[in-house]
Amino acid sequence: MIIILQRNGEEQVNEIVRYVHSLGLEVDISQGTENVVLGIRGDTRSLREEQFVSLPGVQRVNRISSKYKLVSRQFRPQHTVKIKDYLVGDVPHLSDSKPFIIAGPCAIEDEKQALQTFEEIAAYTDAFRGFLYKPRTSPYEFQGLRETGISILQEIRRRYSIPIVQEVLDSRHLDVLNEVTDIYQVGTRNMYNYELLKEVAGTGKPVILKRGWTATLEEWLLAAEYIAKEGNMNIILCERGIRTLSSGEYGRNTPDLNVIPAVREKSCLPIIFDPSHSTGRAELVVPTSLAALSMGAHGLEIDVMPRNYDRRMLQVDGQQAITAQELGEIVKRAGNVWGNG
Amino acid sequence: MIIILQRNGEEQVNEIVRYVHSLGLEVDISQGTENVVLGIRGDTRSLREEQFVSLPGVQRVNRISSKYKLVSRQFRPQHTVKIKDYLVGDVPHLSDSKPFIIAGPCAIEDEKQALQTFEEIAAYTDAFRGFLYKPRTSPYEFQGLRETGISILQEIRRRYSIPIVQEVLDSRHLDVLNEVTDIYQVGTRNMYNYELLKEVAGTGKPVILKRGWTATLEEWLLAAEYIAKEGNMNIILCERGIRTLSSGEYGRNTPDLNVIPAVREKSCLPIIFDPSHSTGRAELVVPTSLAALSMGAHGLEIDVMPRNYDRRMLQVDGQQAITAQELGEIVKRAGNVWGNG
Amino acid sequence: MIIILQRNGEEQVNEIVRYVHSLGLEVDISQGTENVVLGIRGDTRSLREEQFVSLPGVQRVNRISSKYKLVSRQFRPQHTVKIKDYLVGDVPHLSDSKPFIIAGPCAIEDEKQALQTFEEIAAYTDAFRGFLYKPRTSPYEFQGLRETGISILQEIRRRYSIPIVQEVLDSRHLDVLNEVTDIYQVGTRNMYNYELLKEVAGTGKPVILKRGWTATLEEWLLAAEYIAKEGNMNIILCERGIRTLSSGEYGRNTPDLNVIPAVREKSCLPIIFDPSHSTGRAELVVPTSLAALSMGAHGLEIDVMPRNYDRRMLQVDGQQAITAQELGEIVKRAGNVWGNG
Amino acid sequence: MIIILQRNGEEQVNEIVRYVHSLGLEVDISQGTENVVLGIRGDTRSLREEQFVSLPGVQRVNRISSKYKLVSRQFRPQHTVKIKDYLVGDVPHLSDSKPFIIAGPCAIEDEKQALQTFEEIAAYTDAFRGFLYKPRTSPYEFQGLRETGISILQEIRRRYSIPIVQEVLDSRHLDVLNEVTDIYQVGTRNMYNYELLKEVAGTGKPVILKRGWTATLEEWLLAAEYIAKEGNMNIILCERGIRTLSSGEYGRNTPDLNVIPAVREKSCLPIIFDPSHSTGRAELVVPTSLAALSMGAHGLEIDVMPRNYDRRMLQVDGQQAITAQELGEIVKRAGNVWGNG
Repeated sequence: MIIILQRNGEEQVNEIVRYVHSLGLEVDISQGTENVVLGIRGDTRSLREEQFVSLPGVQRVNRISSKYKLVSRQFRPQHTVKIKDYLVGDVPHLSDSKPFIIAGPCAIEDEKQALQTFEEIAAYTDAFRGFLYKPRTSPYEFQGLRETGISILQEIRRRYSIPIVQEVLDSRHLDVLNEVTDIYQVGTRNMYNYELLKEVAGTGKPVILKRGWTATLEEWLLAAEYIAKEGNMNIILCERGIRTLSSGEYGRNTPDLNVIPAVREKSCLPIIFDPSHSTGRAELVVPTSLAALSMGAHGLEIDVMPRNYDRRMLQVDGQQAITAQELGEIVKRAGNVWGNG
Repeated sequence: MIIILQRNGEEQVNEIVRYVHSLGLEVDISQGTENVVLGIRGDTRSLREEQFVSLPGVQRVNRISSKYKLVSRQFRPQHTVKIKDYLVGDVPHLSDSKPFIIAGPCAIEDEKQALQTFEEIAAYTDAFRGFLYKPRTSPYEFQGLRETGISILQEIRRRYSIPIVQEVLDSRHLDVLNEVTDIYQVGTRNMYNYELLKEVAGTGKPVILKRGWTATLEEWLLAAEYIAKEGNMNIILCERGIRTLSSGEYGRNTPDLNVIPAVREKSCLPIIFDPSHSTGRAELVVPTSLAALSMGAHGLEIDVMPRNYDRRMLQVDGQQAITAQELGEIVKRAGNVWGNG
Repeated sequence: MIIILQRNGEEQVNEIVRYVHSLGLEVDISQGTENVVLGIRGDTRSLREEQFVSLPGVQRVNRISSKYKLVSRQFRPQHTVKIKDYLVGDVPHLSDSKPFIIAGPCAIEDEKQALQTFEEIAAYTDAFRGFLYKPRTSPYEFQGLRETGISILQEIRRRYSIPIVQEVLDSRHLDVLNEVTDIYQVGTRNMYNYELLKEVAGTGKPVILKRGWTATLEEWLLAAEYIAKEGNMNIILCERGIRTLSSGEYGRNTPDLNVIPAVREKSCLPIIFDPSHSTGRAELVVPTSLAALSMGAHGLEIDVMPRNYDRRMLQVDGQQAITAQELGEIVKRAGNVWGNG
Repeated sequence: MIIILQRNGEEQVNEIVRYVHSLGLEVDISQGTENVVLGIRGDTRSLREEQFVSLPGVQRVNRISSKYKLVSRQFRPQHTVKIKDYLVGDVPHLSDSKPFIIAGPCAIEDEKQALQTFEEIAAYTDAFRGFLYKPRTSPYEFQGLRETGISILQEIRRRYSIPIVQEVLDSRHLDVLNEVTDIYQVGTRNMYNYELLKEVAGTGKPVILKRGWTATLEEWLLAAEYIAKEGNMNIILCERGIRTLSSGEYGRNTPDLNVIPAVREKSCLPIIFDPSHSTGRAELVVPTSLAALSMGAHGLEIDVMPRNYDRRMLQVDGQQAITAQELGEIVKRAGNVWGNG
């Protein structure tokens, strides 16, 4: 249940909070520019709207129909995630803005590949990706440089002030990663790993939550709710293609463009799109990126490789990496789509 | 097996054709601008490439690896379908061109609705849709005006010189439809109805072949091959969203944008996109249309309703119909995407 | 809306029927052993239950929640299809009974293969399958003997009094098939071909309606409703495996055993199971058949090949054909499962 | 690559192992009753079969075509997992044997429910389930008793000598669980959580690895390979229903019976079946269990609730729990299916 109050009524808010607590329930408070929204958590089935609607300062009382609350648009009509001086999400003056671009190698495979990639793309990116820990379907595939790659990221940090995204596979890696990570990512394979979600939330850092291969929208938002419930609302959702009957015949996954407006309708969280894992083919990354932006994506997360690199030499996902030049083309053309989308 | 010959060698072609016939096999001939391509059909397993490679005029001999032959890009690297003075497909000077736009009501429900819709969209459309025969999931739903709507289409024909698309559900309807139809459509539910495909092919008119809900690309192209094998290469494929684990939770189907470049890689046939049935929601039609064009679609097929119409009054798919104004916006913005796609 | 009346009240029934007709609605009448059930069709939204509940003889008035009516269990709690002296469906004294077994070649490929198969299985089968018209994914694959095979079926008819099942692909084939067919089958590819369903219904003969590859239960029952609405309730549903993310990696389709009890809960129609197309592998046919019977299937439809036949010589689905001996094993073991299921 | 040697040739084995190590590769040794099989791991692409085939004692040399090695049937044709005095898997004298039955509450919700359930089922079960840690889709749902439930399991251990299965969600819980756990389970949501798989493998205890909702067979076996690669071959695979287009309309998931013979063909690991999560409905558990056994499952894992319990009072999956009486019926009838399967 949600209670919407006029702003400038701190005492009235406190009174309602005390009352709700006396019923054995919890309250989340969302301060908007014009209203204060109270979200009541717990077993609210016995509450009646009439208990609240006549209290001083109350404007409206709504039942939330979804199972998720903190990440729903009903509870929080507007929400952005601040990454340095960048606001990701539905920014009021969108026309002044641009999509949030995360780019870099899928995995950091060696220092030369990493440094060269980041140097080439620094001008176009709002955040660097390039993971040390890689979950691989086979135990015989390259598992990432893991701890041994930390020094590479330290070097990146010395050279650039661009935030760094790191995927985390296990809460025991958080200590090692914390120093070199500005934004954590929880990948497709771990979307249902609620113990990990809670631990990552506890770092207080922004979390990119990728969608599971066949996760429903409700499951995805409830996974985000696990993070929000720990008090961390710095969540960015990332669509990365779903597994369908067409996966495998062509394309690695099917980019689910419909989910972008669906997320924006149901949730207050920003939604970005990963064209690289959605398609699995470098030549589709540019058009799919523009397609996602035209559907309302707030940003993109893209695999890049160094110029003049032989993609077959990459141990991870070489066939889907684009060059800095193609990334620049996306950024340039994104403006058109973004302004009109 | 495919035999590529130099152009200007009619006698050499005839000689090979005679030789192939003598082996009990059939030959299709495709005249390109620089080459003549002979496609050999039948049980070609016992043929060896050496039997042909040294014959006069022969440049190359290829085995076709796909099960479809006539509609494959290997056999016919370039193919367009002529609809009046419009060439649908990979036109050499694409920048002079624009996407092929089919628009109109999902179903013709009455004369007023039909005439008003067509009047409003005539300026933006290359072909009219608006079906008399509608396959509906429930026998209690509106099944289309059927024969009784023919006079409406006759009136449309009097007013406009724009080609008319009609869906055909049964070969016994072809006689009635033939007079008012320039382009036949075989819908999703009938993609595997090979008897119908053969009959429609026999009319010689262009055929739009929609993809089945969960048809593989191979199944779809083999269905097209049924039409081609009857001697009718005027085939336009139409992607209209696939059924996935996300269908139903949000969005009616999942627009499979990856299939557009996949079709262009595997087949010589033009591919258009239906954003209305792919998404099932009017507000997603504009961005999805632009997304499909950026992926390389050669055209669009879109449901439209009259201006100031109450979409709830429509008996068929009212929630996905856009207005002529929105159609105009797509056509205007398509130019940008198209030129750069 | 459904109105349940006491039996022995013909006048009361007639009165209600006249009243409903006066409202512009239609009535279907189902005579049970204890009740008469009237099903009202048309736009029943404005009807109120109170209009009927106090009329003489009326016991109960129910709204039907499903979109299908005639084939729902709400309307007709008990329904069997009579095939010669065999009742397919929920027979009162099930323990006296056995599952309905349809068996034979997938396609009739030549006279010898057909006659030998039927001879070997005659002792175990309640109906013969062995189709003349085969819908094939590729136009270059064997399409069935079609008209030229009629004489083979005539010979079968002379030798055996066992009913013959024939798949129909096009209503124009009904004339040819009618003489040699006791039960029509509409296959997976044509489940959504409503024009064909109506024509087949019109023959009055029993119809086996196979489920589409990814048809929902509702779509399947609504397709059956198209047949029922033509006045033909001799419908047998046949589950034959659905297309899932596992199809292709192993197994041809995924046998959807859950759908068997779901059909029995929602619909009055009998449901049989095709283990051959569900699994695509001969060695899985026996256990899958027993599994389906333990889930409540009323019968089985099974591909068989002659003893000592090389399955690679079959043009259609050779890898999934079992022998008469294996069929006999299913029939023998079915008794155990059936009695306890 | 796999090298099969005669038994009784320890020196020959050692010689080959030394040779392989000298090439920078690793060797796994599987002792069979008649042969010794050496599996070579690492980059074996440059190895040629001729290098080994003529060495003393070598009978055959095979390349393994699958990505998994240790869990493949090629490498280890026969493998059982010992749980107390029970051998799970393809036991030589199967007719003396019976399926391995794991049963108990889905979650332990309180002491009374747990003790009563275990008491009622003790006669029918080879292992107890009843989890303390429950991964739930919503953070607002009951998450299990967690640490606070340990004393209940200690009590169970005092009363019964039956092995206890516990699901593990996070490697940090292993210390707490270790004392009360004989068999670990990794659930559907964590099948791709490779860091957890490695840690659980490290305990040396048997591991039940449930299949992910839409995991391919290859992905599943590669996840098992992560465990095997840590030196723990005590792995039991558990099919628990897959997510398909039918999930949700009826049935919770679709039991993928085809995967059972597929696992037995590709892998040496035992495969059990969970009818409770496959169907989500208590009334389907008995027939689905028998169906799975007839397909070759080596055991069953089943949710049970106390006799005379109101299933609506259960916080987790009450609608799918059966009673001890129904469990007894499965065990009794399993014998028939098992002996003939």
